Amino acid sequence: MKLSARNALKGKVLEITKGQVVAKVKVDVGGQSITSLVSVDAIEDLDLKVGDEVSAIVKSTEVMIAK
Amino acid sequence: MKLSARNALKGKVLEITKGQVVAKVKVDVGGQSITSLVSVDAIEDLDLKVGDEVSAIVKSTEVMIAK
Amino acid sequence: MKLSARNALKGKVLEITKGQVVAKVKVDVGGQSITSLVSVDAIEDLDLKVGDEVSAIVKSTEVMIAK
Amino acid sequence: MKLSARNALKGKVLEITKGQVVAKVKVDVGGQSITSLVSVDAIEDLDLKVGDEVSAIVKSTEVMIAK
Amino acid sequence: MKLSARNALKGKVLEITKGQVVAKVKVDVGGQSITSLVSVDAIEDLDLKVGDEVSAIVKSTEVMIAK
Amino acid sequence: MKLSARNALKGKVLEITKGQVVAKVKVDVGGQSITSLVSVDAIEDLDLKVGDEVSAIVKSTEVMIAK
Repeated sequence: MKLSARNALKGKVLEITKGQVVAKVKVDVGGQSITSLVSVDAIEDLDLKVGDEVSAIVKSTEVMIAK
Repeated sequence: MKLSARNALKGKVLEITKGQVVAKVKVDVGGQSITSLVSVDAIEDLDLKVGDEVSAIVKSTEVMIAK
Repeated sequence: MKLSARNALKGKVLEITKGQVVAKVKVDVGGQSITSLVSVDAIEDLDLKVGDEVSAIVKSTEVMIAK
Repeated sequence: MKLSARNALKGKVLEITKGQVVAKVKVDVGGQSITSLVSVDAIEDLDLKVGDEVSAIVKSTEVMIAK
Repeated sequence: MKLSARNALKGKVLEITKGQVVAKVKVDVGGQSITSLVSVDAIEDLDLKVGDEVSAIVKSTEVMIAK
Repeated sequence: MKLSARNALKGKVLEITKGQVVAKVKVDVGGQSITSLVSVDAIEDLDLKVGDEVSAIVKSTEVMIAK
């Protein structure tokens, strides 16, 4: 299955913090850290654990540029 | 000025493609490429050019995880 | 590959309209129509054509409720 | 009042889970389930309850395609 | 119809610029200007014109804070 | 540092509500209130307090229009 989202950054899960509905996932992407807020359901559905090899996926319309 | 968005990935502008209203910007981030869709106004306001050192900024709610 | 996005609605591509940078894709999802704006690159990368069986994917943070 | 968001999928509230700040709402849309993360304030403001007839609203820029 | 999005800023359309697929709308909100990128279909569907009284609607998950 | 996001509305923090992972921030923008959902990390990183002068930042692709 290919996805239209243009950004898929390979990395490793550093940290997972679960709230009641939302969870925070930190991913190391080539030395830079990316933070994702996803539903707790997603954490369980993907059986996500620290150390997992994952991709951080972002739709290009959601990326801003700062200069 | 500090921003609440948790993700600021340092990189260099590889490519800019302007449409009438929207522009596509490709940024090299540590060997992985990020694509951003922003308004043409933003390209002109930031005087964005290929080779510029920039940050690709993403709010953590917009980042998905794939495993 | 499993994705954290909670919404994947199965459907069929009805219509594709390409701009210079952005393209509009209409998908029939069980009798209701969904419109997606993605990059033209994505259309070409997925070799997307009218009639294709696809999923419309939406992160749960992007879904609003009206009552 | 008409909204520019192109996607309004009619359905029925299946489930509501409230956190401290964010709530999860599951909506049955023609046999497929949609998950929305909204603020707890919104749940109270709309007096949202299981069984309510609602629309799940998504801006077209937020819809990805997978093939 | 009430919407879960928490932000509805009343204002007046200042400017509309149509591309092939996406349009830019500038709205004056109490002296500050807001820019929206929506589909051209939405402009036509809402019969949007300069001078129209409108609301600029934003889901709270999409608002960042800078300090 | 300039940001591609087109919308930066100046205002003052009215209220901060912290959950475990996500926090709600209400900002008074020229008499109209804006609600933002950001990570708790961001609140701490910006040392955000009621009464602070801030900007509410929104990417133009995330702004809808209602008429």
